Amino acid sequence: MVGYAFMGRVHSQAWRSVGAFFDLPVKPSMAVLSGRSRANTEAAAESMGWASVETDWKELVKRDDVHLVDICTPGDSHAEIAIAALEAGKHVLCEKPLANTVEEAEAMAAAARAASARGVRSMVAFNYRRVPAVALARQLVAEGRLGTIRHVRAQYLQDWIVDPDFPLVWRLQKDKAGSGALGDIGAHIIDTAQFILGEHLTGVSAITETFIKERPLADASAGLSAQGGAEMGQVTVDDAAIFTGRFGGGAIASFEATRFATGRKNALRIEVNGSLGSISFDFESLNELWFHDHTLAAEEGGFRRVLVTEAGHPYAGAWWPPGHGLGYENTFTHEVKDFLEAISAGADPTPTFDDGLQVQKVLDAVERSAGDDSRWTTV
Amino acid sequence: MVGYAFMGRVHSQAWRSVGAFFDLPVKPSMAVLSGRSRANTEAAAESMGWASVETDWKELVKRDDVHLVDICTPGDSHAEIAIAALEAGKHVLCEKPLANTVEEAEAMAAAARAASARGVRSMVAFNYRRVPAVALARQLVAEGRLGTIRHVRAQYLQDWIVDPDFPLVWRLQKDKAGSGALGDIGAHIIDTAQFILGEHLTGVSAITETFIKERPLADASAGLSAQGGAEMGQVTVDDAAIFTGRFGGGAIASFEATRFATGRKNALRIEVNGSLGSISFDFESLNELWFHDHTLAAEEGGFRRVLVTEAGHPYAGAWWPPGHGLGYENTFTHEVKDFLEAISAGADPTPTFDDGLQVQKVLDAVERSAGDDSRWTTV
Amino acid sequence: MVGYAFMGRVHSQAWRSVGAFFDLPVKPSMAVLSGRSRANTEAAAESMGWASVETDWKELVKRDDVHLVDICTPGDSHAEIAIAALEAGKHVLCEKPLANTVEEAEAMAAAARAASARGVRSMVAFNYRRVPAVALARQLVAEGRLGTIRHVRAQYLQDWIVDPDFPLVWRLQKDKAGSGALGDIGAHIIDTAQFILGEHLTGVSAITETFIKERPLADASAGLSAQGGAEMGQVTVDDAAIFTGRFGGGAIASFEATRFATGRKNALRIEVNGSLGSISFDFESLNELWFHDHTLAAEEGGFRRVLVTEAGHPYAGAWWPPGHGLGYENTFTHEVKDFLEAISAGADPTPTFDDGLQVQKVLDAVERSAGDDSRWTTV
Amino acid sequence: MVGYAFMGRVHSQAWRSVGAFFDLPVKPSMAVLSGRSRANTEAAAESMGWASVETDWKELVKRDDVHLVDICTPGDSHAEIAIAALEAGKHVLCEKPLANTVEEAEAMAAAARAASARGVRSMVAFNYRRVPAVALARQLVAEGRLGTIRHVRAQYLQDWIVDPDFPLVWRLQKDKAGSGALGDIGAHIIDTAQFILGEHLTGVSAITETFIKERPLADASAGLSAQGGAEMGQVTVDDAAIFTGRFGGGAIASFEATRFATGRKNALRIEVNGSLGSISFDFESLNELWFHDHTLAAEEGGFRRVLVTEAGHPYAGAWWPPGHGLGYENTFTHEVKDFLEAISAGADPTPTFDDGLQVQKVLDAVERSAGDDSRWTTV
Repeated sequence: MVGYAFMGRVHSQAWRSVGAFFDLPVKPSMAVLSGRSRANTEAAAESMGWASVETDWKELVKRDDVHLVDICTPGDSHAEIAIAALEAGKHVLCEKPLANTVEEAEAMAAAARAASARGVRSMVAFNYRRVPAVALARQLVAEGRLGTIRHVRAQYLQDWIVDPDFPLVWRLQKDKAGSGALGDIGAHIIDTAQFILGEHLTGVSAITETFIKERPLADASAGLSAQGGAEMGQVTVDDAAIFTGRFGGGAIASFEATRFATGRKNALRIEVNGSLGSISFDFESLNELWFHDHTLAAEEGGFRRVLVTEAGHPYAGAWWPPGHGLGYENTFTHEVKDFLEAISAGADPTPTFDDGLQVQKVLDAVERSAGDDSRWTTV
Repeated sequence: MVGYAFMGRVHSQAWRSVGAFFDLPVKPSMAVLSGRSRANTEAAAESMGWASVETDWKELVKRDDVHLVDICTPGDSHAEIAIAALEAGKHVLCEKPLANTVEEAEAMAAAARAASARGVRSMVAFNYRRVPAVALARQLVAEGRLGTIRHVRAQYLQDWIVDPDFPLVWRLQKDKAGSGALGDIGAHIIDTAQFILGEHLTGVSAITETFIKERPLADASAGLSAQGGAEMGQVTVDDAAIFTGRFGGGAIASFEATRFATGRKNALRIEVNGSLGSISFDFESLNELWFHDHTLAAEEGGFRRVLVTEAGHPYAGAWWPPGHGLGYENTFTHEVKDFLEAISAGADPTPTFDDGLQVQKVLDAVERSAGDDSRWTTV
Repeated sequence: MVGYAFMGRVHSQAWRSVGAFFDLPVKPSMAVLSGRSRANTEAAAESMGWASVETDWKELVKRDDVHLVDICTPGDSHAEIAIAALEAGKHVLCEKPLANTVEEAEAMAAAARAASARGVRSMVAFNYRRVPAVALARQLVAEGRLGTIRHVRAQYLQDWIVDPDFPLVWRLQKDKAGSGALGDIGAHIIDTAQFILGEHLTGVSAITETFIKERPLADASAGLSAQGGAEMGQVTVDDAAIFTGRFGGGAIASFEATRFATGRKNALRIEVNGSLGSISFDFESLNELWFHDHTLAAEEGGFRRVLVTEAGHPYAGAWWPPGHGLGYENTFTHEVKDFLEAISAGADPTPTFDDGLQVQKVLDAVERSAGDDSRWTTV
Repeated sequence: MVGYAFMGRVHSQAWRSVGAFFDLPVKPSMAVLSGRSRANTEAAAESMGWASVETDWKELVKRDDVHLVDICTPGDSHAEIAIAALEAGKHVLCEKPLANTVEEAEAMAAAARAASARGVRSMVAFNYRRVPAVALARQLVAEGRLGTIRHVRAQYLQDWIVDPDFPLVWRLQKDKAGSGALGDIGAHIIDTAQFILGEHLTGVSAITETFIKERPLADASAGLSAQGGAEMGQVTVDDAAIFTGRFGGGAIASFEATRFATGRKNALRIEVNGSLGSISFDFESLNELWFHDHTLAAEEGGFRRVLVTEAGHPYAGAWWPPGHGLGYENTFTHEVKDFLEAISAGADPTPTFDDGLQVQKVLDAVERSAGDDSRWTTV
C-alpha cells in the first residue's frame, strides 16, 4: 500500500478485517507499506499491521512479494504509480478521483485495459457503492422497482472549511488536488448516482464558487508575515459546485458538492424518483435506505425506513444480526472483498478505470460549463 | 371573493376564522362570492359563509358593500380582475402567480402602485411566507444568526400527475396556467427563498422537462376516439423545472419544482447554510423548523427540531398551547390578518404586486435559460 | 356552549367550520355561550361567533333554541351540567375526563343511557380519536393488518410545569381537576390506546409522583408572604404517572403521562406491535402514521411514513390535497361532524359516556395501585 | 478467548483492531481460542486471527502465554470459567449478563474483589456504554447539563422470535440463558440507564410474559413427532418484560425488553428528561444523540441531532473525520481499549463484576415482582 494517511488507515483496516468476515478465495497478507518518511512509515506499518516498509513506491512496485498495489496518495501521483504497477503486473486498487485530469485518467484507463488482457486487474475506490443501502438501491432500480427514472437529486455536503482561518491544505490547491469539493466529494455523488441508475450523465450545466479566496498557509505557524498575521495563499480550487444534468434514460438531475454546508458533516445524500417508486439515502444515517413503493394503494404509501442490516441485504449477512449497524470502514472491507473475488475469478472488478475515466469526464464537463456561462456541456 | 375551488375554499376559511384568533382593527364581513354558474356559486356561498353571489365578477367589483376583492381564479384572469378592482378602489388580494406573463404582471404592478397612492392596497398570496416556521427562518436570517449565506437548496416536490392517464386539466395547459410546475409551485419556492434571505435572485441557469407529452382530455369520458381510446391532447407546460441561481448577497442556489417526485406530496423544502448556522424546512412537517447553530461547540452542534408553536413564535401565540400543531389553512388566516392590519395602518402589505412581478421575472428568466441551452440568464 | 377558555375556543372553531367542509344532515347554529362574567363572555361570544350569552349555565340549559350543550368547563362541574342538560332533552358533548370521580362518571353514564332511550345523544370529547392518523391506525388494527397485538407503549409528554415557579393553577388542584397529568393527559392515551386496539385494559400496576410539592399561589402577585416571597400552596395532584397494564386480548402495555418531559410539548405517542405489523404515532407530527408491514420480505420491511392526507384516509378527503397538513383544531371539527351525523341518524355517537366511565375506572385503578405498593389492580 | 460464536467474532474484531486506532500502553496478541470442537475452533481461529486453539477452556486458563481471558460463552458457564481464570491470575473480560443467578454473580464478584487485591482485573462487557453517543449522554448528565433527572424511559426492542415456528434455541431455555429478553437485552438497558444517570435503581414493579409457550425443538429437522409435525419443547423464559422503577436520585422510570416488537431490530432506546434538558438515543441510529437544552429560550429549544463523530467526542477522535459513522463492532474495540488501559494503569476498569452483580440483582427483583402480582420490590 502506498500512503498511510486517512485513506491508508481505512484501507488497512479493510485488509486486516476482510478475511474474518468473508470466505475468500485467497487470503490477503499485508506485505509492504510505502511512505516518504522512514520513521513515520515504520510507525504506521507497526500500528496498522504491515510487515515491512519502503520509502520509495518504486521499490514497492518491484517487489515479488507484492501482488496488489493499493494507492492511497493524493490525486497528482495516481497516474504514475498506477501505470507503473500495472506494467509490473500488479493488480491495482486506486483511490478516487482516478486522476487530476482527463488526460491522466485516459492513460491510466488504457494501461488498465492492456493489463486486463494479461490478467492484471484494476479498480477505482468509489467505496460508497459498497454501502449496503446504496447497493440495495442499485438492486431495486435494476429490478425495475422504481419504474422509469424521472429525477435524481444528489448532494454531498460537508462543512469543514467554513472558518476562513482554516489553512490552505493540499486539498485546496489545484496542482495537488485537481479540483476542490468537485473532485473530492462531487466525484462520489456522480459515481454513486450513475451506479444506482446504471446509466451515465450525458450533459451538465454548472456553476462553481470559491467563497474564501485566500487562506493562511498550512505551515503558517512558522512563517508569520511582516505585519504579524499569518502568511496567506491563494485558494485555487472550488469551495462548492452545483450543476444540473441529464441521464441517458431521460431523468433530469441536480448535483451539489460543498464544504460550506454548516451542520452537515458527511451528508452524501441521494434521492431518486421513478414512475413506480422512489429511494432516498443519506450517508449520515448509513444503515438506512428509504423506499417508497408507488404501486401500493395511496392510503398505504410513504417512504419506509429499511434498516439495511438483514442477512438478505448486500454484504450485510457477513456481519452482525439485524439492527447492529455497520460503519464507514466496512464499505472498504466490502470493496477489497469484491476485488479479491474478481481477481480470483479472473474477471475485471467494478468500478473499472474506465468508469473512473468517465467520472473524470463529467468533472471536466462541469468545469467547462462553469467557465462558459453555465452553458449546456455534453460529457 | 372571485372563485370557489380549492383556493376559494381555503381563503373562505381564513376570512371566517381570522376574527376569532386575532384582535383585528377591522372586522371582515364576507359579502359576495362570484362564480360563473349561479347554482354552484350559491351552493358554495351557502357552505362557505358568503352572504350573496354574483355570476359576473364585474358586478362584484362594482358593489359598494365590497371593499376588498380576493382573487382565487386561474392565472389568466388575474390581470383583468385585479386592475379593474384596484381602479374601482377596492383592496386586492390576488392568488399567485401574480399573472401568466411578465407583461401582465407589469401592468398589475403599475396599477397597484397607482392605487397605493390613493390608499388602495394590494397583496399577492404567497401564503407559505406565513407558515410560522418560515417566518421564524426569515427572522433568524434577518437577525444575522446564520451569518453570511452561502447556500440555498429549495425544492417543491409533488407527485399527482405521475400517472400518464391523469387527464389534461387546466393546470397542464399553457394558455390557462402560464406554465406548469414552474409557475404553480416553483413560484412558491422562489418567493419563499427570497423572503427568507431578504435578497433577490440575480441570475439563473435552467432546464425544464415535460415527461408525458400527451394526456387524455379532461372530459374524455364523454369523447372516446375512433379507436376506442380516450381522446388525447398536448401537454403544453413543463412537468418539472430545475435551475441553479445566484443571490444578490453571493449565495449560490439550486431549485427544483416537479409533479413527478413519487412519494412526495407537498414537499416544499428549503435548506439555507450560512457561515454561522443553517436552517432546514419541509412543509410536509410544517410545524418544525430545523436550526443548526454553528457558534456552539462542535461537540454540541447539530440540527435541532424547533417546534414552531411557542407563544413567542410568529403567529403561533394566537392559536393553541405549545405542540398543538397548525395546518395548511392557518397560513391563509395569517395572510388575511396581515392584510387587514396593513389596510388599517395605511401601509402596503407584503408581498406587494411588485414582489409578485419580480417572481414573474425569475420564472421568465428560467424559461429563457431553458430555451437557450441552459445559458446563464440574468433576472 | 359552556366555558370559553382554551377548550371553548377550539370547540367554537369546530362549530364555525364544520359546515364548510362536511356535507351535514343538519346545519349547526351557534346560539348561546355561557360564562360567569358577563363582560368577558360577551367579548368571547363576539369574537368566536356566538349569537348570545348567558351568565348561568342553568339558563342556557333551559333555552328552547338550544338543542345541544357543549361542556368545556373544568371536570368538577361536568356531572351537574351534563345531567341537567340531558334531563332537559339536550344532546351533550362533554370534555374529558368525563368527571373527577368514578361515582360522578357513573351518574353521568346512567343519565346518558336514560337519555338515549329518549333519543337524546351524548358524547365525550376524546378528540384524539379524530386525528386522521389515529383513525387510520384503528382501521388497520380492525382489519387485522397488525395480527395479534403483543405490545402497546403509550406516552403523553409535556413540559409546561417544569419550572418550580410556575403557579398553582386549577389543573394542579385535586378538588378542581380530579388528578394531575393522569386525568388530564393520561386519560387521552388510555382512550386512544383502547380505541386503536378495540379492547379494554383489564388491569394495571402504577406509580405516580409529584416532583414539586409546593408552588406559588396563582394569584400570588397580590399576596406576598411576610418574608417577601410568594405565598405557596400545596400541589395536590400527580406531576407524572407511569403504569403497566394488560389488554383483554393479551397485549402488555406501558403508559406514561407527565408534564416534566423537557423538550416534549404535546407528545401524545403510541406504538403498537402485532404479530403481522406495527404502527407508531406522535401527535407532534400529527399528519403522519408510521406503519410497518411485517408480511413483506424482511429485506423490504421498515416503518413507513404514511402522510395521512389522502382522499381515502379518514376525514382527510374533506379538506385539502395530499400533503397539505391538518392541525390540532381539525380534530374537533371531525368530532362535531360525527356527533351531528349520529344525532341525525338516531344513533349514539362514540365515545359514549359509558366509554368515558370506563376510562375513569382505569384512572381510578391506577391511583389505587399507586397507593398500594404498585400492586396489580383490576379495572 | 473462550467461545467463537456471535460474541466471539465481534470480540475478535475488537482485539484485532484496537492497536491500529488507539495508542495503547500494551499491545495485545491473540494467543488462544477455546471451543469444544477442534475442527470448528481451528477454522474459527484461522479466520479470526487466533494463534492457537484449545478444546478445553481449563487448558487455556493454565497457559503461561495467556494473560487475559475473554469469556464469550452462554451465561451458565460464566461463573466457573471466570473464577478459575481469576484464581489463575488472568485478567477477565466477561460477557453479560454476568451470570444466570444472583448467587453465581456474588461468587464472581467476590472472586474479582480478591483478584483485584492481587492486581488482577476484571470487567463485564456491557458494550453499549462504549457507544460514543451513550458516553456523551453520561458526560452531559455528569456535568449537570440535564439538571435534576425526572424521567427515564428505556426500551430494548427486537423482533426475531415473532414467528411461532422459530425454534427453541438456547436463548429460550432457562437453564442455559437464565432468563429471556430480560437478561439478554433488559440487562443492557438497566446497565445503560444506570450508567448514564450515575445512579442505581432502588426498586421495581414488573410484569413478564411468554407469548409463545411452545416452539419446535432446535434440532427438530431430525426428530419429527409421531404426527409428522416437529417435536415441540417448552419455552421456559420470558418473551418480554416491562417494569417501572425508581432511581436513587428521585427519577421515575419505565423499562421494556422484548423480542416481539415487529419492525424494531435492535432498538436500544433511552430518553432521559431532567429539569434543565433531555437526551434521547436509539441504537438503530447509533451515531446520533438527541439533546434538548432547556436553558435556551423556548423559541429556540428543541431536540438537536448531535452526530457523535467529532474529534472531541468520547472515542470518536480515534477513528474517522466527522460524519463518517461508526458501527456496532467499534463499541467492543472501545471496551478492550479501556480494559487494556486500566490494566496498564493498575486500576479496576468499569463496569466491574460488582456492577454486573448489581444488574443481576435488578433482574432478580424484576422476576420476583412479576411473580408477586407486580408488587413493588426493592433491589
